[in-house]
Amino acid sequence: MAGTRPKKAITAYDVADHAGVSQSAVSRTFTPGASISAKTKAKVLASAKALGYRPNFIAKSLITRKSGITGVALGYADNPFYPALMEELMKRLSRQGRRFLLFNGDPQRDSDPELEEILRYQVDALILMSSTLSSHLAADCKDAGIPVVLINRRTEDGSTSSVTGDNFVGARKIAEFLMAGGHQRPAFLAGAENSSTNREREEGFRAGLSAAGGTAPLRACGNYQLEGARQATRELLASPDRPDAIFCANDHMAIGALEVARYEFGLDVGREISIVGFDDVDMAAWPSFDLTTYSQPVNEMAEAAMELIDLEEKAEPVHRRIPGELIIRKSARNPK
Amino acid sequence: MAGTRPKKAITAYDVADHAGVSQSAVSRTFTPGASISAKTKAKVLASAKALGYRPNFIAKSLITRKSGITGVALGYADNPFYPALMEELMKRLSRQGRRFLLFNGDPQRDSDPELEEILRYQVDALILMSSTLSSHLAADCKDAGIPVVLINRRTEDGSTSSVTGDNFVGARKIAEFLMAGGHQRPAFLAGAENSSTNREREEGFRAGLSAAGGTAPLRACGNYQLEGARQATRELLASPDRPDAIFCANDHMAIGALEVARYEFGLDVGREISIVGFDDVDMAAWPSFDLTTYSQPVNEMAEAAMELIDLEEKAEPVHRRIPGELIIRKSARNPK
Repeated sequence: MAGTRPKKAITAYDVADHAGVSQSAVSRTFTPGASISAKTKAKVLASAKALGYRPNFIAKSLITRKSGITGVALGYADNPFYPALMEELMKRLSRQGRRFLLFNGDPQRDSDPELEEILRYQVDALILMSSTLSSHLAADCKDAGIPVVLINRRTEDGSTSSVTGDNFVGARKIAEFLMAGGHQRPAFLAGAENSSTNREREEGFRAGLSAAGGTAPLRACGNYQLEGARQATRELLASPDRPDAIFCANDHMAIGALEVARYEFGLDVGREISIVGFDDVDMAAWPSFDLTTYSQPVNEMAEAAMELIDLEEKAEPVHRRIPGELIIRKSARNPK
Repeated sequence: MAGTRPKKAITAYDVADHAGVSQSAVSRTFTPGASISAKTKAKVLASAKALGYRPNFIAKSLITRKSGITGVALGYADNPFYPALMEELMKRLSRQGRRFLLFNGDPQRDSDPELEEILRYQVDALILMSSTLSSHLAADCKDAGIPVVLINRRTEDGSTSSVTGDNFVGARKIAEFLMAGGHQRPAFLAGAENSSTNREREEGFRAGLSAAGGTAPLRACGNYQLEGARQATRELLASPDRPDAIFCANDHMAIGALEVARYEFGLDVGREISIVGFDDVDMAAWPSFDLTTYSQPVNEMAEAAMELIDLEEKAEPVHRRIPGELIIRKSARNPK
């Protein structure tokens, strides 16, 4: 490949000169959210284009010590809850002139992005958007002075700020709803065992069953994976003590469970067996699934995360629970 | 908020000194893909952590003129084809020690990310992963010296490198398959009218129908949106001249069409009406849909895009067509 000869670098001063505006106007044109008239901005952009000027934001970040980049670590993208949450975050970061650097995407999906990779890009803040990333990474980043916010997970010691849904309360309400519907043999289809979402949802479900005089649930683990959920459902439905209701720790698994019940066991979902999820992803409302579930509002969760990453110097971690609600559709038998 | 007192900056020399290794070893520890023994790397990381050292990758990028960041512009994330493609790209970028900066996410979904925003972050290359982003942005980036690769779209003049699926050929095979199955009144459910994918798929479909002696298809437009596809399907199925087959320009729309046919019109999909998609997203194989479609292999498309972004100094744009295949499931009547 032939190299191209480096040209003399075009500076902001050259652009200002060409456009007949101040150097500050050039700077403001390329600063997100800075005050500048549309007319001046258009002039600057035309001159920048004519001269081939590339605003050197990276050099600028050395002065401001802000890269304008928010790191986002994504653990597992198959679950449609995460792309939806990501889109809500992107909208908000975009409005503030910030951008998103995605970490992870390792073939081995539940591994952490490495700390040194995150430090290397000098992100201003880090959002860990997954229920399965280790607490380790969050602690390392905090030690390195990078504000960290967890979405949809908490660390055991609560030392990192977090935004979560109403896991315990939601799961308890699901248990009450199923008991009121006359179910006798409820089962819990667990997500990743080491995740806070799974732990809280299981605890809430058990508490709700117990308060309503029910027995401890049957149990199988789908590890928050679609194929895992299918396999766990086969186990549950093939057992002599077949459950009459399955609460799945998220919608992604509930959809897998529902399809196995309907297409492999020929069960009439909502009548012969009740299946309930958690999240209320868009797909839960599709007529093929019509899933009874408990909502985690992604817009409000993203909004709360944006507030928390701006509280950089806060002394204490902040934990925000975003309330959801029971969404009753047709995949579970309703109370009379 | 109380400010914290700035500490004296820790340099790579301090880390080398503390770890008892060369400064070059420290540098190699923080360079993706650089040769370094696991033992030395562990020593460096331990010292870096003990001293609170943050490798300043941004300063380094001023010297190498490589930010290590690949920009990705995403138009519309609801279609599960894009998160799947993104995951394949992330894996590959990650292996090379590169990262992903996502652009767009504007509330107004089909608007382009602004050129100045992309330049601001000095991305090494830009991947436009959408069928609906304007050709304008690609041309502007090329003018600014940033290699651009389009995935799943082409510009009209072909001036930007691209990786696309087998749109024309695939759609023609779908037409042949439907004609061989004895369908009389095929319809085309169009995606975004200005996109190259839609244009090529429609042309291939019409060519295939015509070659098999069929009539021109009925037509409605779903604009690559789920709700748009549902509405377009209602129009088609309510018309006096109801089609007996609908080829939808992607799977995302085909799933919407299938649900409307089954749940709103009570049609037995695959018997009373045939519905075919394009992409072969994971969901197409779910038993709820069991969708006949034409595949676009995301792994091969991502691989090809990675090759093309490395051909930075190439004189001519390169266009790669990734072949797919007809995936026959149960949503369409098969030839006898």
